[in-house]
Amino acid sequence: MQKIMGDATTVVPDYLRGLAAAHPGVVEYDPVDRIVVRRAPAAPGKVGLVSGGGSGCEPLHAGYVGLGMLDAACPGEVFSSPVPNQIMAATRRADHGAGVLYVVKNFGGEVMNFGLAAEILRREGVRIEKVLVDDDASFPPELAARRRGLGAAVLVEKIAGAAAEEGRPLDDVAALARRVVGRSRTFGVALSSCTHPKTGRRTFDLPHGEYEVGVGIGGDRGHERRPLPPVDEIADVMLKRIIDELELRPGNQVVVLLSGLGATPAIELYGLFAAVRDRLVKQGVEPVRSLVGDYITSLDSQGALLTVLHADEELLELWDRPVHTASLRWGA
Amino acid sequence: MQKIMGDATTVVPDYLRGLAAAHPGVVEYDPVDRIVVRRAPAAPGKVGLVSGGGSGCEPLHAGYVGLGMLDAACPGEVFSSPVPNQIMAATRRADHGAGVLYVVKNFGGEVMNFGLAAEILRREGVRIEKVLVDDDASFPPELAARRRGLGAAVLVEKIAGAAAEEGRPLDDVAALARRVVGRSRTFGVALSSCTHPKTGRRTFDLPHGEYEVGVGIGGDRGHERRPLPPVDEIADVMLKRIIDELELRPGNQVVVLLSGLGATPAIELYGLFAAVRDRLVKQGVEPVRSLVGDYITSLDSQGALLTVLHADEELLELWDRPVHTASLRWGA
Repeated sequence: MQKIMGDATTVVPDYLRGLAAAHPGVVEYDPVDRIVVRRAPAAPGKVGLVSGGGSGCEPLHAGYVGLGMLDAACPGEVFSSPVPNQIMAATRRADHGAGVLYVVKNFGGEVMNFGLAAEILRREGVRIEKVLVDDDASFPPELAARRRGLGAAVLVEKIAGAAAEEGRPLDDVAALARRVVGRSRTFGVALSSCTHPKTGRRTFDLPHGEYEVGVGIGGDRGHERRPLPPVDEIADVMLKRIIDELELRPGNQVVVLLSGLGATPAIELYGLFAAVRDRLVKQGVEPVRSLVGDYITSLDSQGALLTVLHADEELLELWDRPVHTASLRWGA
Repeated sequence: MQKIMGDATTVVPDYLRGLAAAHPGVVEYDPVDRIVVRRAPAAPGKVGLVSGGGSGCEPLHAGYVGLGMLDAACPGEVFSSPVPNQIMAATRRADHGAGVLYVVKNFGGEVMNFGLAAEILRREGVRIEKVLVDDDASFPPELAARRRGLGAAVLVEKIAGAAAEEGRPLDDVAALARRVVGRSRTFGVALSSCTHPKTGRRTFDLPHGEYEVGVGIGGDRGHERRPLPPVDEIADVMLKRIIDELELRPGNQVVVLLSGLGATPAIELYGLFAAVRDRLVKQGVEPVRSLVGDYITSLDSQGALLTVLHADEELLELWDRPVHTASLRWGA
């Protein structure tokens, strides 16, 4: 795949500059610390939310900075964790006096660097809680430690962000965030790998007529390669482990996030959503809210990540609250 | 490119079913007439807006049905115009007693079929006005008749939709829509062709290291094939004819719509936006509103369409009005 870009070394700052220029009322980009900070004034005593991760997964996380979601995001290089200095700078901007919640996806570098930043800042007296996002249902429970952080990051940022906005204390916001992770699972499939801007090469080769089952973000391979079936069967494969893990029963209400991986056309993604929804409804599970689009991606991969959250009244109420970020906006 | 799909013959209805299921409060899908209709009640005497075109260019047009934009959309087969019966059914649903405006992109089939539908319905007494969208700046003025309808369709639907929502009469809404077209130009580039779901084949082959200059939607080739330059030069190429044609001068304010063609990652698109914006600002032109994302696409093409609207106070005021559709939403 070819790329619209300049120097491969400035792909990330070029993106961030463009993001801030396109959403001047929503975010500010600080090129020195390479962080993105919300513009909407936060009430004194509002818990701050910070996340970050390897670039290439846009709009994660800078696209979710703004009213009702993150206070600051620290984007790393493509598919590389942000460094502790970035995270510390973001934390200082996000701290409104009530402490900061880190939304950390379960990737080695992110866990380590957010941990280091927290350790240093806590010594300075900053209150920090962390939520570990590990919603990847492609690993069985006995390999739970390897479960990657995927679409649940978006759900956590939305729901915990709404709770922070209404002034809930840090412990409550953190507990809520952990509850969202515990009730969410994601399963991903890819019809192509992606092309890293620095190497210009695909991260793996996939023969025509096959797809990768159980992928994450970052261009890694899945657990298995299988012949590409029709959409209905793809929906079955994606839903099976999610439904089992969440122990979904008739009458349960769910939030569905179906994200394209970056190069999946809307016509295909909505077709897959129709198939997923049919299956949920058939089992008596009610999809009461849904998002379909590019919400967590992997550069120019074709494929999709399906995230399901077992909802309840409190979570839905917070879900519906106003949000105004570059990539998610309603009621504002 | 591989596809997430079932039977190639049901790709369009599967998409529409998914769209309506994901946005149940916003749109209704009528599978018999194959039209998408807004759910938000329209005030009696509101001018109706109808558009449609070949599928494969999502979210055009069904993604723009809702409060503040279209009353109904009629999607054709992939890259094929809707048929007159569809258009007539959409018109009947969109007519709230004050007549209907057709937003017609300058493609042969669309012009013909919207024309036929209008002819028949006018005989029944329905008031219909048409706006022809032909914003493609890649054809020089002497070939104006061949200018395709591109990103200006989104701008027209937003601005004329806001005017209709406030109760302006049909002639006013139509005049405003024509004013938006006259003040908008689009230039497109592609780094890859797209794959038609029925044939499974790319619409053209593009050697690595080259790109197509002056493309539209629908998988057609551009005017020229050139070596792929860095992003800054791509921005120059896209802007040059637009600035010339709109005769933009220092102090002018513009709305910028930069749309990916379907498989362009956000990181590249925002990088291109940064380059476009730098160039406008350097010339004293002020980008006062912008949209960056997949707003008008061509299946799984890589590339972008840049649309610039020479704004004025009235247009900006209407631009800022609330909108609630599947793909564009603010203030609601």
